[in-house]
Amino acid sequence: MAENRKAYLDAQHRIEIRREPIPRPGPGEALVAIKANGICGSDIHFFHQGRLGNFVVTRPYVPGHEAGGEVAEVGEGVADLQPGDRVVAEPGIPCGRCRHCRSGRYNLCRDVVFLSAPPIDGTFCDYLSIRADMLHKMPEGMSFEMGALAEPTAVAVHAVNRGAVRNGETAAILGCGPIGLLTLQAFKAAGGARAVCVDGIGARRSKAADLGADETAEPGPDAERLRDVADVVFETAGSAAATAAAFAFARPGGRVVQVGWPEKNRVELDVAGFIEKELDYVAVNRYANAFPAAIAWLADGRVRGDLLITHRFAFDDVAEAFQFALDHRAEVIKAMVLN
Amino acid sequence: MAENRKAYLDAQHRIEIRREPIPRPGPGEALVAIKANGICGSDIHFFHQGRLGNFVVTRPYVPGHEAGGEVAEVGEGVADLQPGDRVVAEPGIPCGRCRHCRSGRYNLCRDVVFLSAPPIDGTFCDYLSIRADMLHKMPEGMSFEMGALAEPTAVAVHAVNRGAVRNGETAAILGCGPIGLLTLQAFKAAGGARAVCVDGIGARRSKAADLGADETAEPGPDAERLRDVADVVFETAGSAAATAAAFAFARPGGRVVQVGWPEKNRVELDVAGFIEKELDYVAVNRYANAFPAAIAWLADGRVRGDLLITHRFAFDDVAEAFQFALDHRAEVIKAMVLN
Amino acid sequence: MAENRKAYLDAQHRIEIRREPIPRPGPGEALVAIKANGICGSDIHFFHQGRLGNFVVTRPYVPGHEAGGEVAEVGEGVADLQPGDRVVAEPGIPCGRCRHCRSGRYNLCRDVVFLSAPPIDGTFCDYLSIRADMLHKMPEGMSFEMGALAEPTAVAVHAVNRGAVRNGETAAILGCGPIGLLTLQAFKAAGGARAVCVDGIGARRSKAADLGADETAEPGPDAERLRDVADVVFETAGSAAATAAAFAFARPGGRVVQVGWPEKNRVELDVAGFIEKELDYVAVNRYANAFPAAIAWLADGRVRGDLLITHRFAFDDVAEAFQFALDHRAEVIKAMVLN
Amino acid sequence: MAENRKAYLDAQHRIEIRREPIPRPGPGEALVAIKANGICGSDIHFFHQGRLGNFVVTRPYVPGHEAGGEVAEVGEGVADLQPGDRVVAEPGIPCGRCRHCRSGRYNLCRDVVFLSAPPIDGTFCDYLSIRADMLHKMPEGMSFEMGALAEPTAVAVHAVNRGAVRNGETAAILGCGPIGLLTLQAFKAAGGARAVCVDGIGARRSKAADLGADETAEPGPDAERLRDVADVVFETAGSAAATAAAFAFARPGGRVVQVGWPEKNRVELDVAGFIEKELDYVAVNRYANAFPAAIAWLADGRVRGDLLITHRFAFDDVAEAFQFALDHRAEVIKAMVLN
Repeated sequence: MAENRKAYLDAQHRIEIRREPIPRPGPGEALVAIKANGICGSDIHFFHQGRLGNFVVTRPYVPGHEAGGEVAEVGEGVADLQPGDRVVAEPGIPCGRCRHCRSGRYNLCRDVVFLSAPPIDGTFCDYLSIRADMLHKMPEGMSFEMGALAEPTAVAVHAVNRGAVRNGETAAILGCGPIGLLTLQAFKAAGGARAVCVDGIGARRSKAADLGADETAEPGPDAERLRDVADVVFETAGSAAATAAAFAFARPGGRVVQVGWPEKNRVELDVAGFIEKELDYVAVNRYANAFPAAIAWLADGRVRGDLLITHRFAFDDVAEAFQFALDHRAEVIKAMVLN
Repeated sequence: MAENRKAYLDAQHRIEIRREPIPRPGPGEALVAIKANGICGSDIHFFHQGRLGNFVVTRPYVPGHEAGGEVAEVGEGVADLQPGDRVVAEPGIPCGRCRHCRSGRYNLCRDVVFLSAPPIDGTFCDYLSIRADMLHKMPEGMSFEMGALAEPTAVAVHAVNRGAVRNGETAAILGCGPIGLLTLQAFKAAGGARAVCVDGIGARRSKAADLGADETAEPGPDAERLRDVADVVFETAGSAAATAAAFAFARPGGRVVQVGWPEKNRVELDVAGFIEKELDYVAVNRYANAFPAAIAWLADGRVRGDLLITHRFAFDDVAEAFQFALDHRAEVIKAMVLN
Repeated sequence: MAENRKAYLDAQHRIEIRREPIPRPGPGEALVAIKANGICGSDIHFFHQGRLGNFVVTRPYVPGHEAGGEVAEVGEGVADLQPGDRVVAEPGIPCGRCRHCRSGRYNLCRDVVFLSAPPIDGTFCDYLSIRADMLHKMPEGMSFEMGALAEPTAVAVHAVNRGAVRNGETAAILGCGPIGLLTLQAFKAAGGARAVCVDGIGARRSKAADLGADETAEPGPDAERLRDVADVVFETAGSAAATAAAFAFARPGGRVVQVGWPEKNRVELDVAGFIEKELDYVAVNRYANAFPAAIAWLADGRVRGDLLITHRFAFDDVAEAFQFALDHRAEVIKAMVLN
Repeated sequence: MAENRKAYLDAQHRIEIRREPIPRPGPGEALVAIKANGICGSDIHFFHQGRLGNFVVTRPYVPGHEAGGEVAEVGEGVADLQPGDRVVAEPGIPCGRCRHCRSGRYNLCRDVVFLSAPPIDGTFCDYLSIRADMLHKMPEGMSFEMGALAEPTAVAVHAVNRGAVRNGETAAILGCGPIGLLTLQAFKAAGGARAVCVDGIGARRSKAADLGADETAEPGPDAERLRDVADVVFETAGSAAATAAAFAFARPGGRVVQVGWPEKNRVELDVAGFIEKELDYVAVNRYANAFPAAIAWLADGRVRGDLLITHRFAFDDVAEAFQFALDHRAEVIKAMVLN
């Protein structure tokens, strides 16, 4: 393949594949032949709305930040990688020099360059040149699709890290979308014992049960039995009601982890109960130092990525893939686009 | 003194001193001759309102849980203490056997017996028999008044422990009442560097400056300069506005510590900003394992207890002391009752 | 069964079963009908040598501290348990009041009463009355044998807790005896990714491979490839050579966990390398707060207790069981005695 | 000053000042006019021995890594600094991209460039161009000498960080050289309560007492009273005997921090006692994220840098300064060279 197909999304919500020259990796960079891309909810959001938070699509850019591929070429000074290595790209590239980077929380770097946050191009392409230290090697036998799943799994890993999950604990996981289902599995992989998953949609609860939930519940009266029982509660639903429920479900001394983005940004909380139970409430903003665990758990099956992939598309059908994912949100857990 | 004066507070908001026999310490107990009692805001609350949270004054009980004194006698099996030892009483007596007690968070013990939480008698008396393991020895030369201050100081110690203050950090402290002023000093004693104190009352800001605040600010526009700068923010004001401000003042990756009890129990929070900055929000419910530091810092002057005591009363005037503290809340930082 | 069989070990290395009345549980106690006992290496040590460390067999006592059973009766004030509950006994009974108990490290309590540490009677009996808070409930469907394995598994849980295992890490486990094999499984259950097990005996390495080791090595040149690679190294072999190797195998910034007791008590260490790599070296002394995870992992199969039990004996054959375990140390991983 | 004086140390142990052009700061760099340099024991070691560990003086290089100065010029893209800013240089420049850098332990970066580790030039010069992110601003009123002391103070800060000092704890500090005296003060500044300092030289014990030690002891019988009492022990003496004593002095559940480099690299340790007490033994290799606290504490006087500076020299007398420091090791705590 002498060309580099790149899928551009423009401000008119159109996706167009362009063919460009294959880039050459600069010093410290590696060129990756992308083999699989997951479509993230944020990609769909940009496709549908043209913006997300402060990021606005004003000119064509390339979406995608869940990618597995193979090293095609390495630039000057890159010693750890060689052509043929199977890799996952970590898409948030930090400066490496600020106080956040220095102290292990590089996800908070103010100068982070995040692939697919417009106008920065992402991974829906055939070839990507990227700083080599952002690539994580995959073990033998791990598929590119599993590699593409490492990015959302890293969110779940970070959630359990932030939640300081201790061995043998009990969790409640609110919301059984892709992140909730990954958090469920990450919680178990991280030493957690019992997990109760809460979602209003029966099919999602079933999927949670398939993936290891010990119990499931519907929000509302059915979930009342969870009051004060969970060592740690993960809010992945992104609703004010779920955040309020999370505070109720945590046991005294427990933790509430805010993974989902609340639809209205603001939530009224029971601070009195928060004090009485002396809870910790911690936020999750992407991830830091989470890819190695994500890759290891996908590789050894503790995270069943295969059960999350519901749809697959060829790269040339990427526009169709986005439209399908937008139109069938409830049905699509994870759609994969294969180069 | 062959009698034990005890100050009883009844449901009609009256305080009456009764004279009772001096108790004998049971096995594992020690008898303490109380020498100084601080009046806590919660004592005043019961005096004024007859209730606090779920605790209601239905029959006469003895308030007080900030007490310094001297061991008068020890019960069977008490080896660590002997008559004449100067001690501070830790007033929340945990079961020692539940999961919370086992894991170092005994303040969350559901069976805790808290002196002065009606109907449990507290420390406004001449003699108190108490489980010996709840007594902490004071170093040579530390006064009983400083001993009495160890209890509120322990709240401040626990606040900085819960806030995971790291060496060299910057804090914002919202509210400059007794707990805010103690938290300021505990923050510095715990390795914190720069502290900004916020309060609407000028005299309190002045007191904060005297006690080591590097900067003070009024709530509102004057405090806007604190946005996104504090490594850790302590909310001690107990207002929804202060909690909201705490979220705003924390820097990315920072922590917000809820020490004050919000007057309406519920607070609307900017969860979007919470996620963007990936904050930790932690609650403080009394203290655990905090008395040794409180005593050490009061003893060596890192916490200037002497500057907090604004009024002193004799034990026989305890009713007057309570009334004065109620009537002059703004003026009284800490009133001491001396046996 | 109207009698209580108890197996007494005397200073002449004899085991004799006596029949005594069934005890009644006192206040706060529960009477447990013991159903299965594992034989620990320390039991065998007392059987063979008559002493271990400072503990000496001077008069007959009952060995055993790995026990699963069923609640037969509860004493006054016991609300959390009822007859028929299946339980595991945690054998180290702490005071609940000292600084160690208060701070979550109750295994360091100086007043701990440890079942089977002579002269304290242990669990080789039909009925045991014990403080109810020392009993941990087993989930539905977990066998008494698995319950008996909870105690050694708790050592492994504590080892991974002390080692601060982070998600996705790599471990080296030195020694593949029962504790090594349990540590291997606990490491994986706690979020660890890759584990390399080192032992001089081929059969033990095979067992490690069966239980999830990704790689095995012989001590010496074969293990040299492990130098500087492990995030965490667990020394379970109890040899000075293994401790020295543990320091060599840890990567910069890694941790070494001392689980085994070095045969000569003293070890010469490469402190220069320790500093250059800025390691943490942490000790393991039994366990604290570890039974819930141990039980959960045995119940859900993350720890394959069934693969560790190599021999079973009836209670009346307990003397034979001890002799067999002593005579066939290399062959016996875990011998179970069933009531 | 149109020239840049640089003090070169060669393999023949000679120090010679050369005059070179003033460098220009490259992109991301700042040019610092050096105002004060402390002489470190390692500088003296290279001066005396020509080598330290794996570092060998094979050609002339510039020693020095304890420097305070003023920004003279900033390179392209440097927004946080401007000419006239008073700064301290952190001398270990990490890559910012490896796993150690990513996880907050950048001192373990294998590609770290350490100023004054031959053949890398250090800070004994008039002008130094350095990556701007390695400069830490000093607060108003802090002298350049105090700035120069920030580097050794950062070692002490890192030691208390690694030792996980908790509020109100008791420490034993073994060795009262510059690092021991700084560790004493850092321990107190970090929330520690009581500190006992141990050194064989009376003048050093006196200095420790002046700087806040609550008690001092001679090594040997006099120090026996420290057995099992310290929450945390800092070994700064660099002797095998002191490390052994550190293990003895730690209380059950305590920590031992290895700050000094043992003269023979290897130490025989009582691993049995280590296990019984379930200690943590942690190493200190320079520092990470420690300069802000070091600067804050020097600025506010919690670390009395002024009491540590015993000798001062002009820059042109740097050779004499080194010779003096070598010849009067016992007498010189810290010698300062002023530009």
